[in-house]
Amino acid sequence: MKTLSQYKALVEEGILHLDLDCEPRGLYAPIEYGLAEGGKRLRPVLALAACDAVGGEAADAMNQALGIEIFHNFTLLHDDVMDKADVRRGRPAVHRKFSESSAILSGDAMLTLATQTVITGCPDTALKQVLDLFNTTAMEIYQGQQLDMDFETRTDVSVDEYMEMIRLKTSVLLGCACALGAIMGGASSETVCALYSYGEKLGLSFQLKDDWLDTYGDPATFGKEIGGDILNEKKTWLLITALSEDKSGALAAALGKKGAEKVEAVRSVYDTLELSLRCRALEEKYANEAVECLNNAEICDDARNFFAKLALDSINRTK
Amino acid sequence: MKTLSQYKALVEEGILHLDLDCEPRGLYAPIEYGLAEGGKRLRPVLALAACDAVGGEAADAMNQALGIEIFHNFTLLHDDVMDKADVRRGRPAVHRKFSESSAILSGDAMLTLATQTVITGCPDTALKQVLDLFNTTAMEIYQGQQLDMDFETRTDVSVDEYMEMIRLKTSVLLGCACALGAIMGGASSETVCALYSYGEKLGLSFQLKDDWLDTYGDPATFGKEIGGDILNEKKTWLLITALSEDKSGALAAALGKKGAEKVEAVRSVYDTLELSLRCRALEEKYANEAVECLNNAEICDDARNFFAKLALDSINRTK
Repeated sequence: MKTLSQYKALVEEGILHLDLDCEPRGLYAPIEYGLAEGGKRLRPVLALAACDAVGGEAADAMNQALGIEIFHNFTLLHDDVMDKADVRRGRPAVHRKFSESSAILSGDAMLTLATQTVITGCPDTALKQVLDLFNTTAMEIYQGQQLDMDFETRTDVSVDEYMEMIRLKTSVLLGCACALGAIMGGASSETVCALYSYGEKLGLSFQLKDDWLDTYGDPATFGKEIGGDILNEKKTWLLITALSEDKSGALAAALGKKGAEKVEAVRSVYDTLELSLRCRALEEKYANEAVECLNNAEICDDARNFFAKLALDSINRTK
Repeated sequence: MKTLSQYKALVEEGILHLDLDCEPRGLYAPIEYGLAEGGKRLRPVLALAACDAVGGEAADAMNQALGIEIFHNFTLLHDDVMDKADVRRGRPAVHRKFSESSAILSGDAMLTLATQTVITGCPDTALKQVLDLFNTTAMEIYQGQQLDMDFETRTDVSVDEYMEMIRLKTSVLLGCACALGAIMGGASSETVCALYSYGEKLGLSFQLKDDWLDTYGDPATFGKEIGGDILNEKKTWLLITALSEDKSGALAAALGKKGAEKVEAVRSVYDTLELSLRCRALEEKYANEAVECLNNAEICDDARNFFAKLALDSINRTK
């Protein structure tokens, strides 16, 4: 096994070698911009590491890793248009840097490019399995995004519904990345399933942490404004739990405020309900479940340690 | 071979059997709406007929036909958002009936669904070829749409550039439909290529006719307002040719007018340059080239007549 940063470096190199210097520039420039360095590259790293872990060479899953990363960035382009989010990774979102039409059309091209990249170098015998998994995962992600949008206008979202939404919107792609890497490494179907489940649980933990950081992160390290979710009344685990548990009226009053005062007041309701601690306990629960899934995978101890550390680091991250 | 309307009926039946009665409705309802009856179904009809023509059963290419039709309708959903077009086939466009976010997200789901449908039932040996063709075609279509958008702000678009744009945006999908049908029918690669070329030439003729109808069609049969392209100064073959040939200043003056007066004045410039006749001659040229391509395809006379009639009917259609 390599280190996390070695896998990440391989991914960055792979992205630089994608042939995107094509015409018309109006189509390809937004793709290059969208894929430029800046993200964690968690998904492609998982694919490369999973391939390595089951006895393949990381490079054997490079196209699948890149396909997953292109897909992920396609969803960001379109989500940012839908959410009217102007900033992504500290830079103008594609629809602000170029245009809304560019974000839509170049996003479409990224989806097709992702599909084509995922099957590149894939042995004929695995082609159908790889595509079925990739397309099923994509459909689940659209379902998750739709549920997320549906939640905006609802006040009765349950925690179970929320967990299912983030499973679809976020987790299945991490599962898919692990599974594709394992398939390319020639793993048994049991190991493929086990690594899929690892990724899925990791994704739940990961998304809860993301939500927690948006409210409780350190502004010095988080990299974006704290409290955005509260200001937008985004239906996160924190808000959904508070909505269902606060009977004092304090939450409704807090949500009626504006700006920094609103963030402070809502956070204070969360504190009364001990939501920060409880959210972190939930992150830990899912991280532990992820690690347990590794028991069903035929991988070496080195690989087990790599994935276990990744899950535990994820819940202690500050950005 | 069956008749055109028999193939169309098979397509409508196939669409009704797509399993789109899924949750969340916000994702699937716009897909059902977008795919509802109303279009010509030209592309899937071509796929079924091509499969029949090379000795297969039309039903063998049903999934590929449906995949192509779902893809085509995905492009319409997104194009209508990009072009801010509010009406499609006499009904509100998806982004007007539902929302812009719906049109984007459900369109994305249609692209993935199209890809998955295209490979359904495809023999393992043909999978790679089918996907390569489908994905390459999709990329060309995005390139065509980008060029079309680029043309909006240019006044120096040449006829050659225009023909290449409509080849990419429209024709390659007709070629792809024919080729996929032929592949599913077990055709030789020469026949697959010949039918692809037929579809490609047919597409050029078809698009020129579409443009011609928008300016010269009969309001009674055309089904939408005549003159929309002129009012929007859309860079069609007619306008591009007039822009390059009119030295009198009459075109510039005509474009300065508004409403029905503008349509009338621009059409009068076109008439001076005999553009209606010349456009129809060009449609005929490409329809004839399409028919010639059939000489390189191993198909029975019945099939040859079917495709030849389709090409010639296309240039005489009134809607």
